[in-house]
Amino acid sequence: MPYDNILAPTLLLDPAVCRANIRRMAEKARAHALQFRPHFKTHQSLQVGRWFREAGVDRITVSSLRMAEYFADDGWEDITLAFPVNLRELDGINHLARRIRLQLTVESAYVLRRLREGLQHPAGVFLKIDAGYGRTGLAHDDSAGIRSVLEEIDHTPQLTLRGILAHGGDSYHAASAEDIRRGFARTRDRLAACAAPIRQTHPGIIISVGDTPGCTLAGDFTDIDEIRPGNFVFHDIMQLQLGVCETRDIAAALAVPVVALHPERNEIVVYGGGVHLSKESCTDDAGAAHFGLVVLLTRDGWSPPLPDTRVHRLSQEHGIIRSTPEILALLHEGALIGILPVHSCLTAECMRGYLLLDGSRADHLAAQPPFPVTA
Amino acid sequence: MPYDNILAPTLLLDPAVCRANIRRMAEKARAHALQFRPHFKTHQSLQVGRWFREAGVDRITVSSLRMAEYFADDGWEDITLAFPVNLRELDGINHLARRIRLQLTVESAYVLRRLREGLQHPAGVFLKIDAGYGRTGLAHDDSAGIRSVLEEIDHTPQLTLRGILAHGGDSYHAASAEDIRRGFARTRDRLAACAAPIRQTHPGIIISVGDTPGCTLAGDFTDIDEIRPGNFVFHDIMQLQLGVCETRDIAAALAVPVVALHPERNEIVVYGGGVHLSKESCTDDAGAAHFGLVVLLTRDGWSPPLPDTRVHRLSQEHGIIRSTPEILALLHEGALIGILPVHSCLTAECMRGYLLLDGSRADHLAAQPPFPVTA
Repeated sequence: MPYDNILAPTLLLDPAVCRANIRRMAEKARAHALQFRPHFKTHQSLQVGRWFREAGVDRITVSSLRMAEYFADDGWEDITLAFPVNLRELDGINHLARRIRLQLTVESAYVLRRLREGLQHPAGVFLKIDAGYGRTGLAHDDSAGIRSVLEEIDHTPQLTLRGILAHGGDSYHAASAEDIRRGFARTRDRLAACAAPIRQTHPGIIISVGDTPGCTLAGDFTDIDEIRPGNFVFHDIMQLQLGVCETRDIAAALAVPVVALHPERNEIVVYGGGVHLSKESCTDDAGAAHFGLVVLLTRDGWSPPLPDTRVHRLSQEHGIIRSTPEILALLHEGALIGILPVHSCLTAECMRGYLLLDGSRADHLAAQPPFPVTA
Repeated sequence: MPYDNILAPTLLLDPAVCRANIRRMAEKARAHALQFRPHFKTHQSLQVGRWFREAGVDRITVSSLRMAEYFADDGWEDITLAFPVNLRELDGINHLARRIRLQLTVESAYVLRRLREGLQHPAGVFLKIDAGYGRTGLAHDDSAGIRSVLEEIDHTPQLTLRGILAHGGDSYHAASAEDIRRGFARTRDRLAACAAPIRQTHPGIIISVGDTPGCTLAGDFTDIDEIRPGNFVFHDIMQLQLGVCETRDIAAALAVPVVALHPERNEIVVYGGGVHLSKESCTDDAGAAHFGLVVLLTRDGWSPPLPDTRVHRLSQEHGIIRSTPEILALLHEGALIGILPVHSCLTAECMRGYLLLDGSRADHLAAQPPFPVTA
């Protein structure tokens, strides 16, 4: 067995599944003549980034300055930092803007005035638009607000407007695939309407959208120029429940040692808790919250999810799986079992590295020494 | 301002509050003639461990082999690993048992037979008893099961029974302080009844209980020999809501940069999300879930929690605080604000280090390179 040497919770990554996920999205972007700027926050891995490069990707999205620096150090030269500018990191932004093609994301006149004073190198900028998700950005129909922020951009000679950018995060609350498609179409229409008046003075701007559910399920990308999905690289139970992927498209599973069995309540206790999986939960069709589905590890990967088997609760280091007598009978203390994570981005961040099915490893940014958070 | 140099999310630790929390619990243990074996999983810091040593502590509890090794390397020589034995780590257990006084936690005859075959050094052992929490352990009233596991211990010459051990984790679901005291008394009575027949053949055994809520609120420790609380070292919003601590007893706060303001919905967007705080949530008195309370940073620490202000939702890197117009008016992009975590153990694990209020730093185990998970 390739897993015999695993001692403690370990995040397994199936490169074949992962590369197929990358290829599929890259082909979709090509078929729709879209720029493909995948979000790297899900994997945060130079190794996985290289698989993207092999699929023809040369521009990426990240969600922190540190992530931008990590990938810039590996040769990525065109990076969009799709997170509101953190003014406290202006020094780092300056260093990065000097060496790569950097795009920032802004939504506030105050931030732009501070950038005008402090930015020492040219950078691109996206106007963050809220197309209905309600997290960050200028409301898509707030023409006056958008105009005034645009004026600040125009008065900031270091910055060039590259386009408008939205994240359709509401797709994660959709009730069905059809609902996701409808939401994507609404976002698209709102962004097109928002971009039209801006194009009169800034003809070259693009429209950039994110989110794996929308980019996967939508078929009509009229008016869209760029997509920035991230999670599709691994997928997870959240995507599965949204109808965005099949179980065979999930590229990552947490291998965990069984440490106790409780047949009297059909429970398996594993070494693998909230610090390994994250405490992200989701709700199954029957309305029960859980923290992941469970698989058996096999010679070449893992099985489909076991029937009637869920991660029922999590402590800091313990996971409690509720299962069936038949499955408990297969296990003993010291065995390994797999968990398909609810939210692969968070599990990857917790685990800080990957074990590939061939026994090699892949990096994760979070394995680097903690960021020097103070100047 | 001591925080001027903070660039990115940073976990602040107030040493005075932390040391007062340690002192208070150490004094309580002394007053009740209890052995005090604090659980170090909350802080996972050698620096914080040294404050415990200054308070007279010489024995500790941990929840992973790696945590045991980390503290053994700093001179801790009496460690209870209060987590079911992970048979895959038997080599590491052997290494550790050779150099310190190690106590393992067992509940299964199968595990004991494997230890008998593989353990090369003497170790102590606690029988894990489930006094009602329902996570791990032999049911407190399962006399036959307990007897058969005891027989396996007696036939394992490397192991010496030190006592019975329970974690009263149900206290975290208590409705009131009175409920916590009642639950603690019930646990105590059940453990006493469970220990009585064992004492006839193993007269020297002790009764060890954990959990911060019970150990803090209980006044009657009859029959208890040892306490193993952990969270009290920092406390958090969960403890606050349980009535276990006051806000002034919370020793850790996450400092986060403000990156966007949305007065139209009274929201503050901060750089500080699920990868910093963890996704642990709790429910306030009005029944609304949230991810933390919010404080202003002050010259010597932080303010009491701001009224009508909560971390309303979390993305991977974003935190969305819902607040009031008066508080939004105090802030601008680039300002710092503080969040009191819902569950300090998980936030500390996410953040992997501390900034003390005097500007120095303290370590966290998770900042070490990822564990060599494979042999």
